[in-house]
Amino acid sequence: MATITGGIDIKVFFLVIFRVIEGFTKKRMSDLQVLLVAGTHGNEINASWLLDQWKKNPGLIKTHGLGFSTVIGNPLARQLCKRYIDRDLNRSFSKDLLNSSKIDDYEIKRAKELLDLYGSRAIEPCQIAIDFHSTTSSMGSSLVVYGRRPADLALAGLIQNRLGLPIYLHEGEKSQTGFLVESWPCGMVVEIGPVSQGVLHNKIINQTLIALQTFIDEIALAKSGKAKFPKNILVHRHLKSIDFPRDESGNQCGFIHSQIQGKDWIPINRETPLFEDTEGNTVKLSAENFQEDLIPVFINEAAYLEKGIAMSLTVRESWRFERNWYEDLKKIVIR
Amino acid sequence: MATITGGIDIKVFFLVIFRVIEGFTKKRMSDLQVLLVAGTHGNEINASWLLDQWKKNPGLIKTHGLGFSTVIGNPLARQLCKRYIDRDLNRSFSKDLLNSSKIDDYEIKRAKELLDLYGSRAIEPCQIAIDFHSTTSSMGSSLVVYGRRPADLALAGLIQNRLGLPIYLHEGEKSQTGFLVESWPCGMVVEIGPVSQGVLHNKIINQTLIALQTFIDEIALAKSGKAKFPKNILVHRHLKSIDFPRDESGNQCGFIHSQIQGKDWIPINRETPLFEDTEGNTVKLSAENFQEDLIPVFINEAAYLEKGIAMSLTVRESWRFERNWYEDLKKIVIR
Repeated sequence: MATITGGIDIKVFFLVIFRVIEGFTKKRMSDLQVLLVAGTHGNEINASWLLDQWKKNPGLIKTHGLGFSTVIGNPLARQLCKRYIDRDLNRSFSKDLLNSSKIDDYEIKRAKELLDLYGSRAIEPCQIAIDFHSTTSSMGSSLVVYGRRPADLALAGLIQNRLGLPIYLHEGEKSQTGFLVESWPCGMVVEIGPVSQGVLHNKIINQTLIALQTFIDEIALAKSGKAKFPKNILVHRHLKSIDFPRDESGNQCGFIHSQIQGKDWIPINRETPLFEDTEGNTVKLSAENFQEDLIPVFINEAAYLEKGIAMSLTVRESWRFERNWYEDLKKIVIR
Repeated sequence: MATITGGIDIKVFFLVIFRVIEGFTKKRMSDLQVLLVAGTHGNEINASWLLDQWKKNPGLIKTHGLGFSTVIGNPLARQLCKRYIDRDLNRSFSKDLLNSSKIDDYEIKRAKELLDLYGSRAIEPCQIAIDFHSTTSSMGSSLVVYGRRPADLALAGLIQNRLGLPIYLHEGEKSQTGFLVESWPCGMVVEIGPVSQGVLHNKIINQTLIALQTFIDEIALAKSGKAKFPKNILVHRHLKSIDFPRDESGNQCGFIHSQIQGKDWIPINRETPLFEDTEGNTVKLSAENFQEDLIPVFINEAAYLEKGIAMSLTVRESWRFERNWYEDLKKIVIR
């Protein structure tokens, strides 16, 4: 790929120049800049398509004068309707990967590009990143928050207060790091399902539109000091992911049991069959994995097969909405 | 790829040798050999997985002493969980493609391999080929028959008589040719959905198992002269496929309307909205495409997006079961 100096891609160079000129000439109604990302996985096509429609019809979404940048996370993968080219873009933002000069993967280059264009070192950096995904799991609409950054919890609380969406708090999984939104001061993923990869679906489009509009509404309210924060937020805290049953050669020898297929967010107990096979055997949760009130999510997500994840297990917790969460979000939105 | 002579791949060469030895040593209970194919599309994983389970547990399916060959149509695509490597294997069996020496695509080579191993020029040829697929459309279980070969219609009639499955008769679409099963004297596709690509799903596995067992049962009955043929078969005859609405640049500007999403096999009328967009516009069938009693199938099949197919339109017809259909099937199964 043609580079000018210091490894800057020529396309990015011109985009950066464009953003500088844009910054000088555009009448900005807000200093807050929100990054809306779709197509971080190229075969999750509904949000990408929705962003295209918004571009064609600016009236589709009310922006309340906020500043937005919209971007397709992985345009090449989108074009090929694949999840990724070389590696999962949404696991490519770890410092180790970004700082490595040895890795030539498309997604690592793209992660750096996205940071150059919209990250803290950009000419016009974004402060909040919302990353729209879809899933083959029957999750409905949900929010995925990585770790416990106060501003994330505040924003997630605002959305939950408006739409009642479940919050999946992903933390402490060493094999799963480098999520895109973690590279911005505040951000989260919106997951909507079930939908097949590569399928535009009326329900998913509508749910994505509602989530997108609600984020914009709530960020605008937070900016104007009029947001209504809840007293508590309900969090599904990630405990661990479990794999499918495998035979001695490592081949998958069971599938999601009919009793829990499509039953994301519904608690399981000691007797709940998780997997079955063609011989009628069922597999329950092993004693060492079991605890009371476990709640499975991402059941049978197609893309997680390669990660050895049949589902993830969470516990539902009610957390008091802390004042400092709001303070941290305010620092980000009121500038 | 290493070749010995005349373009025969070395792996195929040894497989052919193996089949010869097998032919001499194996006590055959039947001269009829049925080819069961799964994974013709590598990301339709349920039937492939089921064949693996059958191999591990031969008691899973009753074979009634019939001879079977089971094969993964596109093993490389299966490994990568892709539909195909270079081109759709299930459009690669046309004479033009097979006879071309210029095309180096993986799927054309694989088509030739499959014919070498199981086709009429094989040491132990198969006479019937059943090809198990899945779809993201809400088709339930159905049979896809290509053209009007009497033996195909007879066998489809037997299955419909037992399970009530709809028959989709695909014919007369010049852009869609070269289907795998057409290269065997009798054969059809089994389509089961809805399921996401790359997802093992309890319902799809069970439905595939039922269809597979029923095919074997009915072929065994036909062979023993005990099959009960219906008086009529109900056929959904393909008329044409229609594309999504597109803007002046050719980009998809609408999606399947909520009123028909998931409504395969249900008749549409002049007023049925087929597509909608984010601005609330709906698209009905144009006057030149309309006729009474049209029935849509393959609504929103993910893999057909690249083919420019949003759905296919059929008419439902009741056909008298012809005696010569049965005679032709008998010639194939009673040998």
